[in-house]
Amino acid sequence: MNKYNWTVLKSDKNSKARNGLISTPNGKIETPAFIFCATKAALKSISTDIIRSSKTQIILSNTYHLMLQPGGDLISKHGGINKFMNWEGPTLTDSGGFQIFSLGNGSISSEIKGRHLKKNKSLIKITEEGALFKSYIDGSKHKLTPEKSIEIQRKIGANIILVFDECTPYNVNKSYTAESMHRSHRWADRSIEEFNNNKYFKSSYGSSGKQSLYGIIQGGVYKDLREESISFNHSKNYFGLAIGGSLGSSREEMYEVVKFTSSQLKTKYPVHLLGIGDVFDIWEFVKWGVDTFDCVNPTRLARHGTALMRNSKGKINIKNSIYKENLGNLDERCGCITCKNYTKAYLHHLFKIKEVLGLQLLTIHNVFYMNEMMEKIRRGIKNDNIDFEKKNWFLI
Amino acid sequence: MNKYNWTVLKSDKNSKARNGLISTPNGKIETPAFIFCATKAALKSISTDIIRSSKTQIILSNTYHLMLQPGGDLISKHGGINKFMNWEGPTLTDSGGFQIFSLGNGSISSEIKGRHLKKNKSLIKITEEGALFKSYIDGSKHKLTPEKSIEIQRKIGANIILVFDECTPYNVNKSYTAESMHRSHRWADRSIEEFNNNKYFKSSYGSSGKQSLYGIIQGGVYKDLREESISFNHSKNYFGLAIGGSLGSSREEMYEVVKFTSSQLKTKYPVHLLGIGDVFDIWEFVKWGVDTFDCVNPTRLARHGTALMRNSKGKINIKNSIYKENLGNLDERCGCITCKNYTKAYLHHLFKIKEVLGLQLLTIHNVFYMNEMMEKIRRGIKNDNIDFEKKNWFLI
Repeated sequence: MNKYNWTVLKSDKNSKARNGLISTPNGKIETPAFIFCATKAALKSISTDIIRSSKTQIILSNTYHLMLQPGGDLISKHGGINKFMNWEGPTLTDSGGFQIFSLGNGSISSEIKGRHLKKNKSLIKITEEGALFKSYIDGSKHKLTPEKSIEIQRKIGANIILVFDECTPYNVNKSYTAESMHRSHRWADRSIEEFNNNKYFKSSYGSSGKQSLYGIIQGGVYKDLREESISFNHSKNYFGLAIGGSLGSSREEMYEVVKFTSSQLKTKYPVHLLGIGDVFDIWEFVKWGVDTFDCVNPTRLARHGTALMRNSKGKINIKNSIYKENLGNLDERCGCITCKNYTKAYLHHLFKIKEVLGLQLLTIHNVFYMNEMMEKIRRGIKNDNIDFEKKNWFLI
Repeated sequence: MNKYNWTVLKSDKNSKARNGLISTPNGKIETPAFIFCATKAALKSISTDIIRSSKTQIILSNTYHLMLQPGGDLISKHGGINKFMNWEGPTLTDSGGFQIFSLGNGSISSEIKGRHLKKNKSLIKITEEGALFKSYIDGSKHKLTPEKSIEIQRKIGANIILVFDECTPYNVNKSYTAESMHRSHRWADRSIEEFNNNKYFKSSYGSSGKQSLYGIIQGGVYKDLREESISFNHSKNYFGLAIGGSLGSSREEMYEVVKFTSSQLKTKYPVHLLGIGDVFDIWEFVKWGVDTFDCVNPTRLARHGTALMRNSKGKINIKNSIYKENLGNLDERCGCITCKNYTKAYLHHLFKIKEVLGLQLLTIHNVFYMNEMMEKIRRGIKNDNIDFEKKNWFLI
């Protein structure tokens, strides 16, 4: 019996946007949905109680980080990531490939958006077998192969897991992008084989045996390569598809790549866009058929004092001195704990004294904000008025 | 109508310990009780929701820190500390004197316990008028006088406020201790006069007009000086009394000073011991008549990975590698969120990756632990078996 299911509940009349339902053994995810990054099995600064009460549907963790610390075995001993971090809802893990190829190269979003220029210092060698890299913690050498990635993801036990791939950088030519894509396709075949190897189902890893696999569309900014990768992915028995690889070096190029790629995908797959989560972009990308998003932005911004806001800029920075004596709430229309209980002046004070509680309260707000925004997007699809909902959300 | 009241509900048959009730306009405090330090109007790393759900009765903030950042006026504009930090329960502020005289001299407990040797770098001058000091934030000069301290404490608006005093260091001779004590007594008189000046009751500071005043017993380690200070304090119309000043340089000396001082105090006052909160000491001091305690220890220890435990040492350090693969809860008998939901291995992981959530979860546990322990002490008084409760608490 397959506990995984993808249903489109309602399609938007004016675009390719759809309101759908991803069923997993750990619960359902109503899409479009945002997936929050609990990179190392912790959503930085907030507990799972708060994650839940902030309407979060699904979180993700990173295989690369978890394999190094605390290791897949310890998580598997707990019975999987859910029990390890006390989160009973749906989860996703990436394959680890992304971090190997991008750490040491600036931020994840720099990589996807082609802004990275520095040499990758942790990657030692890419071979047909896999990738050899140095641990960012102690410099020790590690190898990640498709088989190893799936094995670790099995141990971690997330609901949705990804094939092992190379995240091809932006600053390479078409020939390398093609070569890399073909290798990632071969790695995908090996990932699938490992995934289908039922030894795990007989193991004692508990829920680790009950997972679903997503393929990843490669091809960088080249339409013909994207098409080739889409064909490849369509020919496999994936539960869902993720749009990966480089999305170009400008917002225009990113829009072009995402629009083109998503337009070619069969509607029978839930579509995930890897690592993109700008609040304005999301409203556009759902119209092109993207169902789920992940990005560190909402939580990372919070830690730097940025509160996501329903204004034309989509944010404010609470550290700004104009908030020093502002006795108003962050957002009168927001129902999060932070907005209901604290003034801007108090939040400003917490950031000025560098108090951890400050980043925690802003993280709570930003998580709640994202979940509320996704709810409004879903309502827009249900009522065929996404643009109205968007204007109402940003008060523009 | 005085909204403040102190009632002894039950006295222990075998010691001077008592189970009492301090009534304030913000609620009652059942004693013996522990007062947690929200130094800068935030209990480091945890929100007021958690403070409440962890059975906390009362918190304190520091006048010294708040006068510098964000200033008494901003707090008063919020309607007082309760509204500023979203805490509706009882509160206490110290007079600010302690920090002026001890900051730059090591920790608070070092000062009280006579361990400080370094010269105070922030204090510029003590005169009859008050203390001139430099801000630890920007080096700007500030003057704190008895009148100023009470004025700021009025603006902050805590329920229990303290007279302005010099926290006489340990490493001075008896003659200086006496001189300092006499000045603090004169400052106390000025604090009382300012407190009784009813201009505040007519002001718009809201709850700031509804406060109670504690005197502070000075005299260092000298019994005759302590007696003189006790006489002085007994002659004033205080709501409660705090034991302040140096308590000596060893545990033995501290026990001696606390035992002697508390034994001389009239039972009509609730007695607070300033800055002491070792889990073993508390069980002794309640027997000598101390009703409330405050200390940064429970929360500070948590931030360094130390969990308070019901074992013979009273603690463990979760960063210790022996917990790396420990799938047990921190304490099976503890009902806090942390103990109910997370394994030692997960908490260890959070500290290894330096994740803020780790110190937050340990802080929650330590706060809950202290409140549970105080509850057991109160039960011991009610049943005249404090020692039995103590043995049962520490499993010794």
